[in-house]
Amino acid sequence: MNLILLSPEQQLSEQRYALSERQSKHLAEVLKKSQGDSVRVGLMNGLIGEAELDTALQQVELKSLSTAPPEALPIELVLALPRPNMLKRTLLNVTAMGVKRIHLLNSAKVEKSYWQSPVLEPESLHQFLLEGLEQARDTVLPTITFHKRFRPFVEDVLPELLKTQRGLLAHPYQASPCPVALDEPCVLGIGPEGGWNEFEVEKWLEAGMEMVHIGDRILKVETAVPVLLSRLYPPN
Amino acid sequence: MNLILLSPEQQLSEQRYALSERQSKHLAEVLKKSQGDSVRVGLMNGLIGEAELDTALQQVELKSLSTAPPEALPIELVLALPRPNMLKRTLLNVTAMGVKRIHLLNSAKVEKSYWQSPVLEPESLHQFLLEGLEQARDTVLPTITFHKRFRPFVEDVLPELLKTQRGLLAHPYQASPCPVALDEPCVLGIGPEGGWNEFEVEKWLEAGMEMVHIGDRILKVETAVPVLLSRLYPPN
Repeated sequence: MNLILLSPEQQLSEQRYALSERQSKHLAEVLKKSQGDSVRVGLMNGLIGEAELDTALQQVELKSLSTAPPEALPIELVLALPRPNMLKRTLLNVTAMGVKRIHLLNSAKVEKSYWQSPVLEPESLHQFLLEGLEQARDTVLPTITFHKRFRPFVEDVLPELLKTQRGLLAHPYQASPCPVALDEPCVLGIGPEGGWNEFEVEKWLEAGMEMVHIGDRILKVETAVPVLLSRLYPPN
Repeated sequence: MNLILLSPEQQLSEQRYALSERQSKHLAEVLKKSQGDSVRVGLMNGLIGEAELDTALQQVELKSLSTAPPEALPIELVLALPRPNMLKRTLLNVTAMGVKRIHLLNSAKVEKSYWQSPVLEPESLHQFLLEGLEQARDTVLPTITFHKRFRPFVEDVLPELLKTQRGLLAHPYQASPCPVALDEPCVLGIGPEGGWNEFEVEKWLEAGMEMVHIGDRILKVETAVPVLLSRLYPPN
């Protein structure tokens, strides 16, 4: 937790915010902060700055807010729904890397049970996004959109997205090397374990996606995603 | 498991290898392979090719071996020992990405208990490396070297490594942007959660390491490592 992120529901008065149990505990036990210490805070979807810690009341008092959150990546990330554990880590990681629009999509090789996982409860998803923001000192909450049916997504939603964005589909076969340092926004599609099936690849191509690969090593989704994101939009 | 990796101790005759329980199970249940099917195999530290599956005996018979394993990354990766769960994922990921020389190093912010974790047993480490190779269809086993004391490593071991390799230390402060597409081998140092302390940074610099960063977002080790590796040696 490299930032104490404050939500509107934590606000007590103009400058005062209540800390959550988790935040109080982290400040005391990991960061070893005590009464009156200065801590780095950010307002949800807002600026970053300093606040004074009031351990007795488990509150902070804002002192200054002046820093904008780090730049977002101009990307729509479309993920075939990964298994619950991998989803959790992937959401945290892509949020930390600056992705703001996440689509979770069905695919033939997505196990049906994944859609029933408690990990997909709004409260649970919110928690992973929060942890990703806290990790990267960001304040801007990503949105997650569910597409439980593949076909309506690629036929109706995707063409709209591709009107203003370049479409890239990570796929190890019949693909070109993934471009480096894009200067335009993109839609990036990433498949399930075992990959997209032929019908799905066909539909992606029909919609106008280009197939790209990142070499002859097959990587897990959680490894491939940071590699792809940092290759498309290298941090500097 | 994108490759059935065969170790010398599995060899029964010139062309026959016994499958492990894990391999048999994966072939049957995940890849749905049956008697007589062709499966992709690799010999440990050797070539990749095809074998015929004998489900009755839980064996394979080699048919052809012709493909070299994918290229390795010319890097010595020096990791401050991560917490056991993160170590496991990181070893798997860096092995899948082609790292062959891994050093696990102590640092002031590495919890002492991490060195006692059963994850560090040779059998357990071997398993993570194996999974990384199977993931990326590689056959060349990485080596892991332990350095339980920071100072002897940076004072005695590191200078030798730096005689023939460029040294880069991932560090978010007083650093330059990490170079892109190196054309030389390197030593890459990656810190613990919470970072290196001042003394440690001083020692790294004395030994001749350059400090590099990957932007203003602070990433977890498991995310930062794929970003750094693919930035230094972009797969194509």
